[in-house]
Amino acid sequence: MKKWIRGGTVVTAADTYQADVLVEGEKVVAIGYNLDTTGAEEIDATGCYVLPGGIDPHTHLDMPFGGTVTSDNFFTGTKAAAFGGTTSIIDFCLTSKGESLQSAISTWHEKARGKAVIDYGFHLMVSDANDQVLEELESVVANDGITSLKVFMAYKNVLMADDETLFKTLIRAKELGALVQVHAENGDVLDYLTKQALAEGNTDPIYHAYTRPPEAEGEATGRAIALTALADAQLYVVHVSCADAVRRIAEAREKGWNIYGETCPQYLVLDITDLDRPDFEGAKYVWSPPLREKWNQDVLWSALKNGILQTVGSDHCPFNFAGQKELGRGDFTKIPNGGPIIEDRLTLLFSEGVRQGKISLNQFVDLTSTKVAKLFGMFPQKGTIAVGSDADIVLFDPAAKRTISAETHHMNVDYNPFEGKEVYGEVVSVLSRGSFVVRDKQFVGQAGAGRYLKRSRFTRP
Amino acid sequence: MKKWIRGGTVVTAADTYQADVLVEGEKVVAIGYNLDTTGAEEIDATGCYVLPGGIDPHTHLDMPFGGTVTSDNFFTGTKAAAFGGTTSIIDFCLTSKGESLQSAISTWHEKARGKAVIDYGFHLMVSDANDQVLEELESVVANDGITSLKVFMAYKNVLMADDETLFKTLIRAKELGALVQVHAENGDVLDYLTKQALAEGNTDPIYHAYTRPPEAEGEATGRAIALTALADAQLYVVHVSCADAVRRIAEAREKGWNIYGETCPQYLVLDITDLDRPDFEGAKYVWSPPLREKWNQDVLWSALKNGILQTVGSDHCPFNFAGQKELGRGDFTKIPNGGPIIEDRLTLLFSEGVRQGKISLNQFVDLTSTKVAKLFGMFPQKGTIAVGSDADIVLFDPAAKRTISAETHHMNVDYNPFEGKEVYGEVVSVLSRGSFVVRDKQFVGQAGAGRYLKRSRFTRP
Amino acid sequence: MKKWIRGGTVVTAADTYQADVLVEGEKVVAIGYNLDTTGAEEIDATGCYVLPGGIDPHTHLDMPFGGTVTSDNFFTGTKAAAFGGTTSIIDFCLTSKGESLQSAISTWHEKARGKAVIDYGFHLMVSDANDQVLEELESVVANDGITSLKVFMAYKNVLMADDETLFKTLIRAKELGALVQVHAENGDVLDYLTKQALAEGNTDPIYHAYTRPPEAEGEATGRAIALTALADAQLYVVHVSCADAVRRIAEAREKGWNIYGETCPQYLVLDITDLDRPDFEGAKYVWSPPLREKWNQDVLWSALKNGILQTVGSDHCPFNFAGQKELGRGDFTKIPNGGPIIEDRLTLLFSEGVRQGKISLNQFVDLTSTKVAKLFGMFPQKGTIAVGSDADIVLFDPAAKRTISAETHHMNVDYNPFEGKEVYGEVVSVLSRGSFVVRDKQFVGQAGAGRYLKRSRFTRP
Amino acid sequence: MKKWIRGGTVVTAADTYQADVLVEGEKVVAIGYNLDTTGAEEIDATGCYVLPGGIDPHTHLDMPFGGTVTSDNFFTGTKAAAFGGTTSIIDFCLTSKGESLQSAISTWHEKARGKAVIDYGFHLMVSDANDQVLEELESVVANDGITSLKVFMAYKNVLMADDETLFKTLIRAKELGALVQVHAENGDVLDYLTKQALAEGNTDPIYHAYTRPPEAEGEATGRAIALTALADAQLYVVHVSCADAVRRIAEAREKGWNIYGETCPQYLVLDITDLDRPDFEGAKYVWSPPLREKWNQDVLWSALKNGILQTVGSDHCPFNFAGQKELGRGDFTKIPNGGPIIEDRLTLLFSEGVRQGKISLNQFVDLTSTKVAKLFGMFPQKGTIAVGSDADIVLFDPAAKRTISAETHHMNVDYNPFEGKEVYGEVVSVLSRGSFVVRDKQFVGQAGAGRYLKRSRFTRP
Repeated sequence: MKKWIRGGTVVTAADTYQADVLVEGEKVVAIGYNLDTTGAEEIDATGCYVLPGGIDPHTHLDMPFGGTVTSDNFFTGTKAAAFGGTTSIIDFCLTSKGESLQSAISTWHEKARGKAVIDYGFHLMVSDANDQVLEELESVVANDGITSLKVFMAYKNVLMADDETLFKTLIRAKELGALVQVHAENGDVLDYLTKQALAEGNTDPIYHAYTRPPEAEGEATGRAIALTALADAQLYVVHVSCADAVRRIAEAREKGWNIYGETCPQYLVLDITDLDRPDFEGAKYVWSPPLREKWNQDVLWSALKNGILQTVGSDHCPFNFAGQKELGRGDFTKIPNGGPIIEDRLTLLFSEGVRQGKISLNQFVDLTSTKVAKLFGMFPQKGTIAVGSDADIVLFDPAAKRTISAETHHMNVDYNPFEGKEVYGEVVSVLSRGSFVVRDKQFVGQAGAGRYLKRSRFTRP
Repeated sequence: MKKWIRGGTVVTAADTYQADVLVEGEKVVAIGYNLDTTGAEEIDATGCYVLPGGIDPHTHLDMPFGGTVTSDNFFTGTKAAAFGGTTSIIDFCLTSKGESLQSAISTWHEKARGKAVIDYGFHLMVSDANDQVLEELESVVANDGITSLKVFMAYKNVLMADDETLFKTLIRAKELGALVQVHAENGDVLDYLTKQALAEGNTDPIYHAYTRPPEAEGEATGRAIALTALADAQLYVVHVSCADAVRRIAEAREKGWNIYGETCPQYLVLDITDLDRPDFEGAKYVWSPPLREKWNQDVLWSALKNGILQTVGSDHCPFNFAGQKELGRGDFTKIPNGGPIIEDRLTLLFSEGVRQGKISLNQFVDLTSTKVAKLFGMFPQKGTIAVGSDADIVLFDPAAKRTISAETHHMNVDYNPFEGKEVYGEVVSVLSRGSFVVRDKQFVGQAGAGRYLKRSRFTRP
Repeated sequence: MKKWIRGGTVVTAADTYQADVLVEGEKVVAIGYNLDTTGAEEIDATGCYVLPGGIDPHTHLDMPFGGTVTSDNFFTGTKAAAFGGTTSIIDFCLTSKGESLQSAISTWHEKARGKAVIDYGFHLMVSDANDQVLEELESVVANDGITSLKVFMAYKNVLMADDETLFKTLIRAKELGALVQVHAENGDVLDYLTKQALAEGNTDPIYHAYTRPPEAEGEATGRAIALTALADAQLYVVHVSCADAVRRIAEAREKGWNIYGETCPQYLVLDITDLDRPDFEGAKYVWSPPLREKWNQDVLWSALKNGILQTVGSDHCPFNFAGQKELGRGDFTKIPNGGPIIEDRLTLLFSEGVRQGKISLNQFVDLTSTKVAKLFGMFPQKGTIAVGSDADIVLFDPAAKRTISAETHHMNVDYNPFEGKEVYGEVVSVLSRGSFVVRDKQFVGQAGAGRYLKRSRFTRP
Repeated sequence: MKKWIRGGTVVTAADTYQADVLVEGEKVVAIGYNLDTTGAEEIDATGCYVLPGGIDPHTHLDMPFGGTVTSDNFFTGTKAAAFGGTTSIIDFCLTSKGESLQSAISTWHEKARGKAVIDYGFHLMVSDANDQVLEELESVVANDGITSLKVFMAYKNVLMADDETLFKTLIRAKELGALVQVHAENGDVLDYLTKQALAEGNTDPIYHAYTRPPEAEGEATGRAIALTALADAQLYVVHVSCADAVRRIAEAREKGWNIYGETCPQYLVLDITDLDRPDFEGAKYVWSPPLREKWNQDVLWSALKNGILQTVGSDHCPFNFAGQKELGRGDFTKIPNGGPIIEDRLTLLFSEGVRQGKISLNQFVDLTSTKVAKLFGMFPQKGTIAVGSDADIVLFDPAAKRTISAETHHMNVDYNPFEGKEVYGEVVSVLSRGSFVVRDKQFVGQAGAGRYLKRSRFTRP
């Protein structure tokens, strides 16, 4: 079965041009004018950008956290992703000390099975780099196709790993061709400041930010970079939120080191004052790292523009306000960290970035899709509109104006942190490997249609 | 007339994939499998990369310098370019104080007329930013399509402009949407050191390097950046040769400023010791800025890899050893500055960069073609293989191994600075707007077939 | 004749201790307890600091500027200096292109003759580094004892020198053992911005600041540093006003280069908003470089505290509001640049710095006296209280509280930029080479008692 | 009893002048000419510098380490110190987890009792910042006069503290007015690399250096600085060995933070190649941090010259080659870390620094005595020659030339790392609180004459 996407403007990380796209089966087979479209279903893309489907490198679906579980599972989460123009995600597979990696991976496969409507892969958390884990990683990379390993430098006594674990992981990653990811905040500092705040009776959401200062992120970022340089490995810093961290990444890249960074829409658009919203609304804005002072936004945009940061992930980690965020009333440390972004990632970046001249249209595609695919071993299967690539295609109407709202979004969560924000750009239709998931803004996908992605070893993009 | 480029691997700044390319007239009209190739001439690209033609942003053809003239004119120079896989050049149009800009532009059109075998544009030198010049620039940008303006900070009493000229040019460039280029060396310092060297009887070629220290390049680069930031304009630093300059560009980009940098193959491959070759051979290695200590090469490669520098130009400025370079026997200041590179730019970058893992294949295309097109207002007409773009296409055999030599090169010059160097990669065939210029390594182009390129105003890539 | 300064606290750049000081003739001959004070006049210093007399490295007395002349001559200026605890000054001797250096020096000796009540030396401006000047400098350093040479990078078409002049001066200064001083602002940029402002009808005093942006100071500072590094010479940046310049000095010092910096009380205490005072009062706050945004003050204090800047000069350059500053009504470029500070330099630094914990008491002495003496070849004759040194001694009451006012100051000028400011610290008595100039807050000095200071060649402190 | 030190040149951190010094009892009572020396013993200082006694901020006497004990106890060590011109030391008092601080302090008092021939204080190691320790610190600072606290970031599983301990110590230190010291190397990295080296059979002394790379020191230095900035506290980085660490200190100081650094003669004079000496001689050169590549020496000298580092300590930690260093034959990790320097600290710094023009004479005094006293709460009792200060005075002959050798040194160790080095400068006589310890190069002191120094709380110098 062929599909003929007609009349749109194809946009890739490099190019922008008018052309038709011909899809056959799961693949793009031709791009051009006057194609042989015999027998092809015609899809009108007039007025639309024809984008490679977004790839979200940072999601937490169906994830236990602090006694509760993120409110989107692999069905609701991937459906919402598709509505937002995302056709692949890489979700974080958590591990526990003592548990075998395969057991953790199995658990995550279980979560996804029969639910995902788009393709998905896993990052694997490394909590303890003991000999068994280091050995098991060989097969994880080679056979499970999990080629990115996450180490937490924060969440003391829960997820946090020490420098030995990070360093061993980096050295092993270099041997195996995996990309190491870090949540870079100094957990010891945060732990101390948090206890101090509570001891002093400071329990409001804003103290989540006050007890996670940017210096603690900068320090940890610098430390992870130094260890990476020593290991001659490769590092990807997730959810960079502040100037201090950006500066260290910039310095490392100037030295030619293989250091990459991701930021998220929340850090580009929201700021620390949101944590001070009345009636405990600030709890909706509790991320880790926290939202920062507004001036950091300019630094992050500049870093995207000039290639210091390479990707924009969502860090989608949704919790309902009612019953979940509310757990933290009277004690900000009990507010589940995170928020729902998987659906609005592309639109926010387009509307605030491309429309306002902060990044180019091609950079938008690169940041949300292409570079993600390249860094995480999914390219060229994913991340571009090119002959031979998967037909993960989004028809995006750049002129549409809409208002973000929990009432209309598709994520399984009772609020939207960008509630009421007017944005430009709307996803009209979405194909995943040649099949519609969203068509004319209606969901037409199937739970379980999404396939697990074995990813390739890391190579420099 | 159609052409069907079959069986190759298309490489763009973003993508690498197997596909056929269909050319109709001057344009690419389709890319894919099973295209409708009725009536098309079949061109076998098996085993070849199908690259967008290289764009050389920095050439000096038929240019007077120090009492002599560069040895390649627009015919020999563009023919050699084509042999090297370059299908567009932007040549520097010199001006003199007092001369109208239109007069200078006419002179340059005269040089190119009936000679160029590939397309060409002009940068325009600004030597004196008086009111008349500033006014004339409006039409130069709008009507002549010259959207890049070059200012020299070196060559005191000859080409050098003062800071006022540079600053006014930047402010005007911002208004008009032009990109300002600087030759960044502190001319006052160089002038003094040169006179000192001669006064002390130091006349050998190596003193060309000793009297143009890297600090003088770093200083001027920093100064041009500071003035650009003050003018809120955009700057492109040509022929960056050393770590000091790279560091300043990196810092500026970290601040989010619109600063771009170009380096050249000679700085990536050769070094200061070449200036010390016996029998006056060092004269062949006289560039400005000069070749640097070898460790700077690593810094330049890292800067290309991590996006601190955006392009690789040739600074093709050829002079014969016999009769031209020899003018400087006994007085290094009389050695014409520059060398022949237009033909070997792509191969050197591929062989030393991509093959050795210093940059990726897509970066190679970006550095030699795509980003050049984007920065200089030629995109998407030039700089990519995409539907609707000019069919400037190079078939490049990455496996071919050959030896660079003056005996086999096509430049009109009696030596090659890379003589005897073994490289990988060879240009097999070249199309310019759909017509062969080189076919199976034979020249089949026509003098005068190259068209003048009116370029668009600057936009951020 | 001996003097016995009894009961005070001696403060030097290194030490703070209770001791008596015995002066014989012009020199300190003993410090201690139970000294042999036979025949000595007893001076009660109880409750006072016994400080080495301040040395002001930056004054402009009786200096023509923009068609008028600074309002303090060598009598009124040095008398006011003495009242402020300063016992030596180094005044800037201006030169003109074409004029012999000796002629300029003679002019300046003429100005001082019979007037100065404290000792004084001269810096010499280098406006044109032609061969004659460079040769004449040998005798200037050796015979006139002028071992510091000033180059202006601003005031285009008036005082400004080009990079050649600066570079030659640096090279000559290295040979001769002189310290080069720069006024570091990019004159071309300032000139352009000024003309633009006037052309747009922006004539108020605040435009003096807007047309001299901090980036122009940073750029020139960096350029002067780069040229100094190339010349392997020594540089002293006068009146550093902003973070951009501080950063460049810090970087240079980290590299081990011989770069020094001075700031002034006005930059530590006042800010750009003062230029916006109503009724043309802003004209009183016109300095070059201009007052900066307030946050720069913290950077300057930190730089003093941590040794990045070494001295605090006054840049005393007084003009009356009536008849002088008023020349600039309707055209800020006609406002004479500068203000009266010679008298309040020490008190302001003590009150705002030492009292508020920003610098230590010993640093205060070092910044206002000792380091000045060391950098400018006056040590140990001047700049300390030590046996064998000149008895230039100040009795300073740190507990006294007073209000700065033009009604009570001794400078010959009709306003005080710090009018109404409450400060701690008052000069009680002042000795110059063992003789009172101020005694119990009364002037007891003599016009002409001050001696010209031949200074030694530069050595690293 | 009075002493009249006649005819010498007094040198302090600020001044250099000819004067007699009169000592009465333990104190300096007068400095000058024609002092009343009735009844005073005359000491001829002609041709000598009269220096404030050196203060060594970093010694390890009678300290257990790796199953052995440093070979100098408080008698032999302080006697050797005196021979080298040092009149005070601050020794590191180690603690163990679980042990009360008072118990550790008592142990150290026991070691010193009846042995020290010069005055001494203690730094206190903090190995575990639990609530009891944090509470106990109040009395340690107030009553024991121990106002500097040492935290180890290296020696994993032995001395190393985690970031929580460091951070809590910094916060407590700020409250109490103590200066926190860090041994800054990333212990996790070192531990891993060491195990790897042994696993690969790399057991020679040079692997001590290879397994402790400079990046690990830079990282830890940066981390300690970041935590100090967050705590708004004060930090002193001991034994800085490399450019990476210097750079981070320089950056911190530019920001105005209270960060100080110490280096040691070994890092200024020796380098990594010494670890490769044959016949296991490399073991004599095993310090932590290790000796670095030679180019780091220039960076360290520049940092001393320009005020980025403030002190030079010895890190005296002597072990005999026979029986102690030899423990590490076949396993570099068993070589006791450290070497004998207490005696040669001043001479090496004078000879290599002052004589060769790298630092000034006053800086030499500041680095070895005055700034140490100021940073560690001993000033003005110690650290200067001033009226009222302790008469800790060294007569130093700057013209004497001698050869360093284990045969002539006074340290209780069977080798000298500088064996055979010719140096300028010799200590002739030494007074401690007015009494001779060394007189005309002969030991005349008494075991037990040295007094324990209670030190004041930290104030910025």
